[in-house]
Amino acid sequence: MSINGFCEAEQCVVGIGALTTEAGVTIPDVDIAFRRWGTFRGDPHGANNLVVVEHALTADANAPEWWAGLIGPGLALDTDTYCVVCTNALGSCYGSTGPASLHPDGKPWGSRFPALSIRDVVAAEKALFDALGITRVHGIVGGSMGGARALEWTLTHPDFASTALVMAVGSRASAWQIGIQSAQISAIENDPHWADGDYYDARLAPDAGLATARRIAHLTYRGELEIDARFGTRAQEGHNPRGTHRDSAQQFAVNSYLEHQGRKLVERFDAGAYVTLTEALNRHDVGHGRGGIAQALARSTVPTLVAGVDTDILYPFHQQEEMANNLGHSLGLRTISSPVGHDAFLTEKAQLADILKEFVAAAAVEARY
Amino acid sequence: MSINGFCEAEQCVVGIGALTTEAGVTIPDVDIAFRRWGTFRGDPHGANNLVVVEHALTADANAPEWWAGLIGPGLALDTDTYCVVCTNALGSCYGSTGPASLHPDGKPWGSRFPALSIRDVVAAEKALFDALGITRVHGIVGGSMGGARALEWTLTHPDFASTALVMAVGSRASAWQIGIQSAQISAIENDPHWADGDYYDARLAPDAGLATARRIAHLTYRGELEIDARFGTRAQEGHNPRGTHRDSAQQFAVNSYLEHQGRKLVERFDAGAYVTLTEALNRHDVGHGRGGIAQALARSTVPTLVAGVDTDILYPFHQQEEMANNLGHSLGLRTISSPVGHDAFLTEKAQLADILKEFVAAAAVEARY
Repeated sequence: MSINGFCEAEQCVVGIGALTTEAGVTIPDVDIAFRRWGTFRGDPHGANNLVVVEHALTADANAPEWWAGLIGPGLALDTDTYCVVCTNALGSCYGSTGPASLHPDGKPWGSRFPALSIRDVVAAEKALFDALGITRVHGIVGGSMGGARALEWTLTHPDFASTALVMAVGSRASAWQIGIQSAQISAIENDPHWADGDYYDARLAPDAGLATARRIAHLTYRGELEIDARFGTRAQEGHNPRGTHRDSAQQFAVNSYLEHQGRKLVERFDAGAYVTLTEALNRHDVGHGRGGIAQALARSTVPTLVAGVDTDILYPFHQQEEMANNLGHSLGLRTISSPVGHDAFLTEKAQLADILKEFVAAAAVEARY
Repeated sequence: MSINGFCEAEQCVVGIGALTTEAGVTIPDVDIAFRRWGTFRGDPHGANNLVVVEHALTADANAPEWWAGLIGPGLALDTDTYCVVCTNALGSCYGSTGPASLHPDGKPWGSRFPALSIRDVVAAEKALFDALGITRVHGIVGGSMGGARALEWTLTHPDFASTALVMAVGSRASAWQIGIQSAQISAIENDPHWADGDYYDARLAPDAGLATARRIAHLTYRGELEIDARFGTRAQEGHNPRGTHRDSAQQFAVNSYLEHQGRKLVERFDAGAYVTLTEALNRHDVGHGRGGIAQALARSTVPTLVAGVDTDILYPFHQQEEMANNLGHSLGLRTISSPVGHDAFLTEKAQLADILKEFVAAAAVEARY
């Protein structure tokens, strides 16, 4: 089976059969969605030109859209040279099996959908590539949840990628992340329309809870200097947030912006998928069952480049420093310097282009094709 | 009237009459609670030994309790030398008038209680000191919301304090603060027991909403390194947060700790007061109506020492830098170096003692008594 014959820039869905989670729940008939750009060249079990791009929490397999300007002919991930593949994470809602998918009994999985770990998400991707007949790739790259997946790939399947680029993530969840991420999950669970996760056949979804979760999350994705430079204490146009009584309809501009971010997510993402993948991030810990972080990273054999954002409050730069310092085969640590905060792994295109070029060039040394 | 005759270490409540908020609502018959330690000496309109201590969001007038080891005989704020007075903020629930207080009609204020600004809180304190016959003090000090009040005092009533110490706060709310504080307010407002603020006569209060607000707030009060060092990805004893399905009863240790913080606050604080004072912090802006921050600070004539915590994510250190750089009569900027984050203005006793001693000594130069 070659991937050249199908899926060029369009989404494909491949059934990978049953998957049993780390915690021991079996999901029969798992689907994984993916997209491909560029022509696959080389040996699917050796040197080839395939680069796997891993998306973050609420993104999809359409990598050239959320990484616009970085993937395509002549760009940093040059699809004239490389074959780029992006899969939609297990547990998401963009084509891969998740809590909104139908259980074999014909009803949505809902609360029956198991909790996932990042390793489970990677296991599903491994099964996809096995199904595609590909057991080795040129490189794997991701930021945030995508970085967690890329890092897990290198530790769980050290023979898969010739090189890796891990950005804006830590080797495990920090207690602060678990705290703020769990507050987001609680906001959804406390929405009466959540119905313990079984709202898919109901008239109303936990939209308010999901929007609240996103408001909180967005404040961890953006640097406080950047948000302040944009909004400060400015009132939303036509609003008076300094009136006689507190009135949630009279807003500071920043709150109007955050509500807008919440609404935008509600329109495009499923609350159940949000809870599932946020919970997977809570469980992220490459040291779990491997004798701890330091030992797990030290055993890594995949040449891995690490990058972090200097103003990231969600995955602070010291987490990438620690990762780069402990990796068995580190290619070094790159700093994305930006006022934007965590989201700079999506927005700082010029710096990202340089880092991506370094990453694919590093792999070229390891694996000519 | 002398304050020596009463209130030694015990809480007193003084009626200050009517107060009209900046936004134009009149609260008749306002009470302000305060405590005093040490003997007042000197001229109530000139040089004297009175130091005003301003508390933070959910604290009370019992300053030697929340600043244990810093206020008392022989301590940094030496009550053998100084007379220390701490007032409970207007809008709080520890003796001063707030939304839980009774309206003249005999029912709780609830939703009728006006939104306050930090200036309104200061105006009530000014009226208290006027009622006590004191128009000048040795110094005024506070951290966080207490720092916002101390700073506003120096700008609104430049003849009141001979010196000021402003800690762990900014000259105005930042957009990030407004965003995260409003998320906390929303958590309370979305609790069905909030009842638009009129829950005081109901059987149930918005406890869950207040606890959620505190969970979020606590993550902004503590440095992520400190929280991570304490909890990491550890499970709460006897819990399995990595089970087959997400289960909010199976917790990571950090979430158990945050829930505990939420419960503790629910037991001692009123949700209405929390919303009122958080909203006052949203409105904090010393530049408002004064031509902006830089101009307002430049006009300050009170010798003011500024201190900040190097790991504070709620009021990042650059905010205190900006304040110290722009103040008309700055006594300089001190760094509280701590992994604890914002709360270091409460916990780093040795460093705080040094800063407090410098502050009271600075005032002594200005105003001998």
